Amino acid sequence: MADQQVHDALDSVPPQPPVLRWAEPPEGPVLVLLDQRRLPAHETELVCTDVPALVHAIQTLAVRGAPLLGIAGAYGIALAAARGYDVVEAAGLLEVARPTAVNLRYGVRLAADAHGRALAGGGTREQAAAEALEAARALHRADADASRRMAGHGLALLGELLPGGGHRILTHCNSGALVSGGEGTAFAVALAAHRAGELRHLWVDETRPLLQGARLTAWEAARNGMAYSLLADNAAGSLFAAGEVDAVVIGADRIAADGSVANKVGSYPLAVMARYHHVPFIVVAPTTTLDPTTADGASIEVEQRPGREVTDVPAPRSADAGSGGGVPMAPLGTRAYNPAFDVTPPELVTAVVTEVGVISPVTGDGIARLCAGARDGIVD
Amino acid sequence: MADQQVHDALDSVPPQPPVLRWAEPPEGPVLVLLDQRRLPAHETELVCTDVPALVHAIQTLAVRGAPLLGIAGAYGIALAAARGYDVVEAAGLLEVARPTAVNLRYGVRLAADAHGRALAGGGTREQAAAEALEAARALHRADADASRRMAGHGLALLGELLPGGGHRILTHCNSGALVSGGEGTAFAVALAAHRAGELRHLWVDETRPLLQGARLTAWEAARNGMAYSLLADNAAGSLFAAGEVDAVVIGADRIAADGSVANKVGSYPLAVMARYHHVPFIVVAPTTTLDPTTADGASIEVEQRPGREVTDVPAPRSADAGSGGGVPMAPLGTRAYNPAFDVTPPELVTAVVTEVGVISPVTGDGIARLCAGARDGIVD
Repeated sequence: MADQQVHDALDSVPPQPPVLRWAEPPEGPVLVLLDQRRLPAHETELVCTDVPALVHAIQTLAVRGAPLLGIAGAYGIALAAARGYDVVEAAGLLEVARPTAVNLRYGVRLAADAHGRALAGGGTREQAAAEALEAARALHRADADASRRMAGHGLALLGELLPGGGHRILTHCNSGALVSGGEGTAFAVALAAHRAGELRHLWVDETRPLLQGARLTAWEAARNGMAYSLLADNAAGSLFAAGEVDAVVIGADRIAADGSVANKVGSYPLAVMARYHHVPFIVVAPTTTLDPTTADGASIEVEQRPGREVTDVPAPRSADAGSGGGVPMAPLGTRAYNPAFDVTPPELVTAVVTEVGVISPVTGDGIARLCAGARDGIVD
Repeated sequence: MADQQVHDALDSVPPQPPVLRWAEPPEGPVLVLLDQRRLPAHETELVCTDVPALVHAIQTLAVRGAPLLGIAGAYGIALAAARGYDVVEAAGLLEVARPTAVNLRYGVRLAADAHGRALAGGGTREQAAAEALEAARALHRADADASRRMAGHGLALLGELLPGGGHRILTHCNSGALVSGGEGTAFAVALAAHRAGELRHLWVDETRPLLQGARLTAWEAARNGMAYSLLADNAAGSLFAAGEVDAVVIGADRIAADGSVANKVGSYPLAVMARYHHVPFIVVAPTTTLDPTTADGASIEVEQRPGREVTDVPAPRSADAGSGGGVPMAPLGTRAYNPAFDVTPPELVTAVVTEVGVISPVTGDGIARLCAGARDGIVD
């Protein structure tokens, strides 16, 4: 089966259900997602038979995380093509499903371009669909490979910054195998430290409002046997003050040309606190998250999500535990301010770790050199 | 009825159910609390007939907030005395019910001392019980008066610091009528600004893990017709970065001799962010919250609360919405780090507003002079 081929190609598949798999007939063609809204209580698959279903899954966070959104977007194009839908229309729907993570747009265009090239070259619709699928699979494989490389670069960087070892790492949101074709971004660095015997403790921010830390990162940490503790995001300050955090390691949803980092809301306060306490603040992201077409932090569109994610707490046993809504906690009629992301300026970021190397200090020049494939000033 | 006498004495009782009332026979003698765990969905009274019931109410946060804990502690002594229980034993139980808020100990000792003096002076048990009750009532009245004075001083301070008016105030946890014999501490300042037409917006941190902001401050803001928005605590950084916060105004659970401020966990990160963004960070607390016997921040005992407050979300329609526990969100077996408070060092505090005046800059000398009743260096 096709989905098995994808997974056989990944030699570091983590010991958890596949977060995303492509299925050929008779099951498919469909895209099957691990429904992240229902984790950790339920490991349920969500079958997307068309692009609107995938768009809904993306918008309600059944599938999420910058690199994985790119992969999902590419497979979404493959799905539209395989089922004979209008690929251009599908690309338009998928690209705008969530505005901040640049990887989604990247993955969609990668597969749509492959599809278009095949048609322009005189290929049949079937051949074009096969090209779109191969583009998605190639991105899937490349992302798994990028995870491994980021983990290696990140672990080396931690060793340089914290030569004493025994790292106590604070992370925010979720950035492990659930966001990636491999073992993830920031979480993969912590996992590499764990496997190297260098992780003393992983501090897991619960990450309100949707609790990706409590639900997803804690689940991944537990599955991997890591020493971890969960905390309300508010308690991070006490950890910094007590000297219990050696480094903050987080992922990113978009990195602008000037090095500004958009990531899950709550990242910027951690950056400010890390600076105040002289703690390194490290961002781990594949080069597909770098967006040289966005000039700076102010140019990053930050998704505003429904207020009910803040005013309500998840209803128990709901299929929407991770998408907000449920039992009202605030008075009815309460308005909420609910940006999904915030933007950390480059001067607060100690380093950006990518699969091709580390950018530090984080400057527009460093980003440009890395995007251009140059190695000047880049540790590799 | 006795409870009516208490309320008749307060000329600024807010338009909400009494947060605490003493009832004489035939209903009492009992102490009746508005059960804050069930707000805002249910306005339910909780009747305490003895001190163990009150201790349980304090520990599960049915009654909470530094000034109100002092009042509740004093009435608890009156309750023990009125019902013929051992007052010394009751004081021992109440004083340690929660370790951080110094007001609880203050209120307990005030009433127990009044009771002890009456007995030592040859009074009957009934006379001693009456003295304890009068001490509790006097503290209740004094706290309402302190609220009014703090609101006045705080509003004047805002006018000095932010001469343009149209204040956008960020607050954390709950510090209104639900924590006080009057209209509260920090919230009372925001309310005074609202009444003076000077409040442009109140930003309400939801205040994980127990959501006192979402459940209680939003409820008080709505009842008072204030312009407010709720936010996940993580989103405060985005507001600072966008220049949407003119001042942070919070309460306190204990202020040490050096000016260190213990308050709800999440306050210290706000102080760090306020400093980074050059925004005033203002603490509002009655002088009963100043604790000259605690030398500094490191000497403040910070209560560690059950991990389930973080690992679970409140069960719907539970009587314990505000005391954590309910539906697990994190994987079973997840350990949580759950300090109830954090400590902000005096150098990050712009001013401490008390009922007798404002301390700014916040120094040990300033605290000492205010505790000694001196007015040097104090704006009044």
